[in-house]
Amino acid sequence: MSKYWSDVVHKLTPYMPGEQPKVDNLVKLNTNENPYGPSPNVIEVLKLEAAESLRLYPDPNSDALKAAIAEVHHLNSNQVFVGNGSDEVLAHVFHALLKHSRPLLFPDITYSFYPVYCGLYDIEYQTIPLAEDFTINVEDYDQPNGGIIFPNPNAPTGIALALDKIEKLLKANTQSVVVIDEAYVDFGTESAVGLINHYPNLLVTHTLSKARSLAGLRVGYALGSPDLIEALIRVKDSFNSYPIDRFASAGAIAAMQDVEYFNETRKKVIATRDLLTKLLRKLGFEVLPSGANFIFARQMSKGGAELTALLRQKNIIVRHFKVPARIEPYIRITIGTDEQSKILIDGLVEILK
Amino acid sequence: MSKYWSDVVHKLTPYMPGEQPKVDNLVKLNTNENPYGPSPNVIEVLKLEAAESLRLYPDPNSDALKAAIAEVHHLNSNQVFVGNGSDEVLAHVFHALLKHSRPLLFPDITYSFYPVYCGLYDIEYQTIPLAEDFTINVEDYDQPNGGIIFPNPNAPTGIALALDKIEKLLKANTQSVVVIDEAYVDFGTESAVGLINHYPNLLVTHTLSKARSLAGLRVGYALGSPDLIEALIRVKDSFNSYPIDRFASAGAIAAMQDVEYFNETRKKVIATRDLLTKLLRKLGFEVLPSGANFIFARQMSKGGAELTALLRQKNIIVRHFKVPARIEPYIRITIGTDEQSKILIDGLVEILK
Repeated sequence: MSKYWSDVVHKLTPYMPGEQPKVDNLVKLNTNENPYGPSPNVIEVLKLEAAESLRLYPDPNSDALKAAIAEVHHLNSNQVFVGNGSDEVLAHVFHALLKHSRPLLFPDITYSFYPVYCGLYDIEYQTIPLAEDFTINVEDYDQPNGGIIFPNPNAPTGIALALDKIEKLLKANTQSVVVIDEAYVDFGTESAVGLINHYPNLLVTHTLSKARSLAGLRVGYALGSPDLIEALIRVKDSFNSYPIDRFASAGAIAAMQDVEYFNETRKKVIATRDLLTKLLRKLGFEVLPSGANFIFARQMSKGGAELTALLRQKNIIVRHFKVPARIEPYIRITIGTDEQSKILIDGLVEILK
Repeated sequence: MSKYWSDVVHKLTPYMPGEQPKVDNLVKLNTNENPYGPSPNVIEVLKLEAAESLRLYPDPNSDALKAAIAEVHHLNSNQVFVGNGSDEVLAHVFHALLKHSRPLLFPDITYSFYPVYCGLYDIEYQTIPLAEDFTINVEDYDQPNGGIIFPNPNAPTGIALALDKIEKLLKANTQSVVVIDEAYVDFGTESAVGLINHYPNLLVTHTLSKARSLAGLRVGYALGSPDLIEALIRVKDSFNSYPIDRFASAGAIAAMQDVEYFNETRKKVIATRDLLTKLLRKLGFEVLPSGANFIFARQMSKGGAELTALLRQKNIIVRHFKVPARIEPYIRITIGTDEQSKILIDGLVEILK
């Protein structure tokens, strides 16, 4: 508390990201990073960027990056907005498109950054409870609102919502913006990007931190009608002219263009996920169906906090959410390599015996 | 205009950065970039960052970078805040520290991003006219305020304010935050950083885009009391957990540590500035005294817009500001190499003959 702080600062409850430990030799399955590195093409172009040209500002509009993203998604560049990670993109989305007189709607169990953004920008919101099986029922969103946002697949459950349900939601909500946060979509969930040309109020956000394995580079983007994108550009140009540095731009372009590597590695992650799910179920875990690169699971003999602590003693880090109470028994496990799955399973066998 | 936009978007007048042309062979003296590349040590460490480890998130707190910055300035790490360029740092400063019931004060002629931030965060402000010679008179700020901000040296004039005047301002304004934006301080202006341990309401912002020649990497920072820094961290952690990517962190650390290269190149820029000033005065230019890596000058026989256009025809880009009217006759010239100065002078001789 300080007389120098703006009022909003006193009221903030900042987001807490998963731990980024500074020691090695951990089986790090807590922040949904990709176990495989980025495409070799990405590494190659990034080395070229380490050059005298760093004295110059990057392109403030990131035109080349927007073009590369647009091409992958069969859209035009004016349907693309880019930012310093999808968290920055989401921040601008909340500020530019989701602050209205009616409340923003999102699930009671979802990405825990959403209420933080609402606090930062003084946005009224209302949470909509997930069904008992943790699925989203789109009919529950049939009420006056200033916008709707949720991840698909949802976080931290990993459960995907089918595309026909999303289209139903869009048809029922033409007066406000519907944001589908597709951070994890590439691991087997149907994307809503194909609906963008049909629904001017649909915005889809993506990140290069997951399936494109560039968490360390900080690039995310939003796709939507030129009208929605223009609002984001206006806010971005009133915040920071050059959010995408020369490395981020060059690396992201190369990553978007190497579709083969992208498909190969995400398929490996999906295969590991499906195998790990089977092995966990054999150990008595209840595992929610996942369309993401993580799974959400519980074992009734141990609480989520206890299981997380016991795994940590074995140098295995998973993520645990204390609230809401409904998800306390669960742990969220990032999909790593098959070898990491084996270490995890071996550790759990010892813990549960 | 769109029903989907938040109210604030309709009211924004975004900042317009200087042109980043996509053609080569220009004498680019328009965005105050450093004519010398970054330290060779920086290039070397950046090449090492192009690696498999990009799959992992960077440190959300940028502890190593904060420590490197703190060491250079003889401060503690809890007196350092880092961001994706000093523009992002300034955005968080406006949001976290400058939004109060009384108006924010800044000069009528200054960095034109300040009123844009006020628009973005709905901050009331009042501009204080510079003296006729474009200097800041600190007594003019002796009035109820919710904060004070200006660059030192000021933009786009380049005129420096002496440290004793800044201390006088701090003594007269203990109830609100005083921000000294030292983007250009390393080119011969006295820094206020030494006052930080004496004035808990002083915040100083720096960038690595100018004297450290890393405009393409996007790193800026703020220095101040732990109380002020905490407000910035709270806002940052409610906006984007990981604004500093792995390249930005590693490159900025290496740049802060190579003090010798930093001193050598900034001295070269200062020498070129002083020579160019003399040559321009010989051509009949009035040149304001500069403590920055740019000069602000006018030649009474041509208007600022006309001179800028004529130089552009010779592939020389300088920056011109249409408003306020008082600065319309001036052009802002970034200090390049001595060779670029010669090309500029030759071009001006032809234009003026």
